Amino acid sequence: MPPAASTGERTGTFGILLFPGVEELDAIGPWEMATLWAHQPGGPSQCLMIGRSEAPITCAKGLVLLPHASFATAPPLDVLLVPGGQGTRTEVNNAELIAFLQHQSTTCRAVLSVCTGAFLLHAAGLLSGRRATTHWASLERLRALGDVVVVEERFTRDGAVWTAAGIASGLDLMLHFIAETAGDDVAAKVQLESEYFPASKIYGNAASSGQGSAYFRT
Amino acid sequence: MPPAASTGERTGTFGILLFPGVEELDAIGPWEMATLWAHQPGGPSQCLMIGRSEAPITCAKGLVLLPHASFATAPPLDVLLVPGGQGTRTEVNNAELIAFLQHQSTTCRAVLSVCTGAFLLHAAGLLSGRRATTHWASLERLRALGDVVVVEERFTRDGAVWTAAGIASGLDLMLHFIAETAGDDVAAKVQLESEYFPASKIYGNAASSGQGSAYFRT
Repeated sequence: MPPAASTGERTGTFGILLFPGVEELDAIGPWEMATLWAHQPGGPSQCLMIGRSEAPITCAKGLVLLPHASFATAPPLDVLLVPGGQGTRTEVNNAELIAFLQHQSTTCRAVLSVCTGAFLLHAAGLLSGRRATTHWASLERLRALGDVVVVEERFTRDGAVWTAAGIASGLDLMLHFIAETAGDDVAAKVQLESEYFPASKIYGNAASSGQGSAYFRT
Repeated sequence: MPPAASTGERTGTFGILLFPGVEELDAIGPWEMATLWAHQPGGPSQCLMIGRSEAPITCAKGLVLLPHASFATAPPLDVLLVPGGQGTRTEVNNAELIAFLQHQSTTCRAVLSVCTGAFLLHAAGLLSGRRATTHWASLERLRALGDVVVVEERFTRDGAVWTAAGIASGLDLMLHFIAETAGDDVAAKVQLESEYFPASKIYGNAASSGQGSAYFRT
């Protein structure tokens, strides 16, 4: 896998993998950022949701999406993002999906995961010996795989492989990826257009209960 | 329209309006928060995406969604959330959609908008004399309507009508709405499960260019 694009380089097709039980925001947070980026000079030439087939896919919380392309019809991707969700528990054993990841990863310039999408990257052999993260509730399960350097950060980069923590962290990963790929000014425009200036309020005491990832545990 | 639920009260059906050209994250950010809330005691009994019909809907950035219910088949909603997007420019003149909003608003306990969804609430007569906000690039257009008290905050509440600023602000609105409706501890659980602990990094200088809403303009 070649290294990630340097600043100012043209980005080709940005693909997001879909599968039954994919977590909605894992996929559509990055979709929003990628498609806003596509409106900027040098942004992705197209953004596609890719399923095993083009049949409707029911997500983890019941949303129903129609993919734009199938494993068979998807073009070579420049960037591939793999969301997580309950569906990953079975998809790690889906040979067709893992083969698609492996095939695409040989030519795309960057592979990104969100949440438990990290387990799909691992099943495709893309996380061995690399720094990575996942949803806080799955950190121990990722460590138990034995060959991943698990870190408790909101997102990580190890060469051409980028991973985000749980669900909403895909938004932060994407802005960082855009900044590293296209420069801070382009990331700033995407941030402004998406109005991603979060309130950052911490509610109640769930985050201080001892659960969670080191980066947000209070 | 009755006031919003008090703490601990059971929430019924949470509905999100879909239409051609709806902005993806406007709808699916709140969907994620609402469906995580539905897994908590006292959360929504069901969450539905509602379109004019049950035919596929193409969003502003090309995502294709299948609604769960149509204007005709949707049950009486407890909470109705209206996303924005380019599609709102024409949907403000869609008598069938506006009638659906008006009809539902007579019985639901709260109506929420995200981004330019505020213009659909206005077309339904729900914003006259109320405090409201919208995407920063549409603040002047909302002021020009003449009968809305436009404020430059990330989200607003005026009785049973809640509005959020641009695209990603729907996430903050929803956590606040959950906290006000079900209590801080429930909002904390949704925040923890969604891992919504944003990095809050400001990229480049777009936010300090003089554009934007007062709450984030630096």
